[in-house]
Amino acid sequence: MIYFDNAATTFPKPKVVYDSIMDAMMNYGANPGRSGHKMALKANRGMFETRQLLSKLFNTGNPMNIVFTFNCTQSLNIGIKGFLRPGDHVITTSMEHNSVLRPIHHLKDQGVESTIVAANSQGLVDPTDIERAIRPNTRLIVTSHISNLVGSITPIEEIGTIAKKHDIIYLVDAAQSAGVYDIDVRKMNIDILAFPGHKGLFGPQGTGGLYINDEIDLEGIFQGGTGSESSSMVQPNIRPDKFESGTLNAPGIIGLGSGIKYLIDKGLDAIRDHEVEITNHFIEGIKDIKGLRIYGPLTTKQAPVISINIGNMDSAEIAYILDEKYDIAVRAGLHCAPLAHRTIGTQNQGAVRFSFGYFNTHEEIDYAIKALREIASNY
Amino acid sequence: MIYFDNAATTFPKPKVVYDSIMDAMMNYGANPGRSGHKMALKANRGMFETRQLLSKLFNTGNPMNIVFTFNCTQSLNIGIKGFLRPGDHVITTSMEHNSVLRPIHHLKDQGVESTIVAANSQGLVDPTDIERAIRPNTRLIVTSHISNLVGSITPIEEIGTIAKKHDIIYLVDAAQSAGVYDIDVRKMNIDILAFPGHKGLFGPQGTGGLYINDEIDLEGIFQGGTGSESSSMVQPNIRPDKFESGTLNAPGIIGLGSGIKYLIDKGLDAIRDHEVEITNHFIEGIKDIKGLRIYGPLTTKQAPVISINIGNMDSAEIAYILDEKYDIAVRAGLHCAPLAHRTIGTQNQGAVRFSFGYFNTHEEIDYAIKALREIASNY
Repeated sequence: MIYFDNAATTFPKPKVVYDSIMDAMMNYGANPGRSGHKMALKANRGMFETRQLLSKLFNTGNPMNIVFTFNCTQSLNIGIKGFLRPGDHVITTSMEHNSVLRPIHHLKDQGVESTIVAANSQGLVDPTDIERAIRPNTRLIVTSHISNLVGSITPIEEIGTIAKKHDIIYLVDAAQSAGVYDIDVRKMNIDILAFPGHKGLFGPQGTGGLYINDEIDLEGIFQGGTGSESSSMVQPNIRPDKFESGTLNAPGIIGLGSGIKYLIDKGLDAIRDHEVEITNHFIEGIKDIKGLRIYGPLTTKQAPVISINIGNMDSAEIAYILDEKYDIAVRAGLHCAPLAHRTIGTQNQGAVRFSFGYFNTHEEIDYAIKALREIASNY
Repeated sequence: MIYFDNAATTFPKPKVVYDSIMDAMMNYGANPGRSGHKMALKANRGMFETRQLLSKLFNTGNPMNIVFTFNCTQSLNIGIKGFLRPGDHVITTSMEHNSVLRPIHHLKDQGVESTIVAANSQGLVDPTDIERAIRPNTRLIVTSHISNLVGSITPIEEIGTIAKKHDIIYLVDAAQSAGVYDIDVRKMNIDILAFPGHKGLFGPQGTGGLYINDEIDLEGIFQGGTGSESSSMVQPNIRPDKFESGTLNAPGIIGLGSGIKYLIDKGLDAIRDHEVEITNHFIEGIKDIKGLRIYGPLTTKQAPVISINIGNMDSAEIAYILDEKYDIAVRAGLHCAPLAHRTIGTQNQGAVRFSFGYFNTHEEIDYAIKALREIASNY
């Protein structure tokens, strides 16, 4: 199978990731951070190493301001709902995933106001529109770094500058960018960064994380055992414990560390260059196919996530043909981003999403171009 | 290393668990429940099979009332905080873990009242004490099935009967029992069951779950992408989607399924009989050691979790000697259950916990008895 569904989860992972997960499970599969025996300490050290790698990758300074979660959605929920209070105003964009839109919508009943800034039809957000939406009670700006629907790249550094100027907290959803695009939370004035472990960072499913600026007092969503201050019925206010109740996914987090080491070793630049190169090759190959529409900016602001449609064909039908006849895995339909579909005009038809990863090849792209050409010619 | 820390996480897991996780990661590591291609559908089917196995194991009826979470702590938070509302009264016990006590304590500020029923000095809870604590506004009773500190078994079926009689919802924390002790939610009148995947059920870390009676309308703690009703900014109200936002740990959940199949194949009775047998052997071997105190009921109400102390020795020192000199892994100190320590009188000294699993042997127990005898004689 040719796998073009890397925006959902990267596949395959580097072999070192599988190996280190298996090693952790089979050779030191203890509960980290609870007991003090050798195996537990080794698991704990493995997790701390991943914390350090993430801290280095995103330039967060203190590794203890990196918190592990189940997935990026939990990270976003903690960031958004842990920060906003009744009477606050939050600004977000029409390109966001439901993992941003639904928590913000949920807070409406609790008296949190929101403004959704519209992107243009290519999925690009204008930072000046965000600045114009600021009100006296605006406390948070939330944007994705890269759209999961059309791969449009949001100018997060410019938005970070605006947020800082107005003393507003900036939360970035790095679901589609972490591990591929440079993120420097200090240089870019990002206060909260939510990221998945199992996409660009090459970790396994069941891993995600959150960077929280040391100066932000975020409320936790869970309370429970932390292995610290055990005698107290009050959740400890220290990081990362405050946000990490219960047993963490130690083998998964250790595997995530191997994934980050792999990508640091290869170089984010090299990974990104390869992905951008095959994406451009794909665009070049399909742009003249009759009846085929490509969405997104298709410029230097284009990440390796490309959505298309052919005529009025149901997007699910195209994906089905690609899967059945050509053994190509893509995602069709609506991509958990309802306003983004309205922005590009695909709310009824959905879209066929090709999302490329480091392990995809030129030959695979050529084959996909040929497949789309055939499908379009039969339409 | 001799591993007696199974109450923290079971180790090792059956080989089929490691194998199925690796197979899922390497051969169909797609995102389940999002895309419709072959690999994604296979991952989704694997997860559904685990849902069915859990439903069968706990006799829940509909598999869709089983929800996957990150760990048992998240399950308990969803169960407790998703159900209680300001003005409600909840009854729990002094034997609970911080994963129950801290969420309930957290709700105090929101106007939720609570009563903590005291267990006796062996860690046993009297159901009539729970019945006596019922008030007109009592809506929830929360108890663990087995204490993580002293292994005392709570009479959950009796408490379930009381809860049903008074039309009160009953939530059971099965952290230490799921996979080893019989749990039949319908026979026992359990309305909400929280369980970890990585303990008695032999799944990997990063898995947990929650059974929710079909008739209960529980609020979700997270909102986000579910792959369903994508066009709506409101979280879908269907199960399990309402509670499963973002990418699940598909390989982990598939591994959990293999663990459950393994234990169903061996028979819960056989697993429990072995664990109880070696526990009794351990108790017999250490009960006459001078200066050694054993906590817990030590009767038919005793599960394979045994806490001890030797004279006034620091529990951490005993655990350190066991680890360094004898290569035995136990847990010392406070066990995230502050009121349980007060109940048995170990709030200052802590306790050394031996928690046995299916893969522990008679010989390992003999060696541990010898080690404790030597440590006590040098004290």
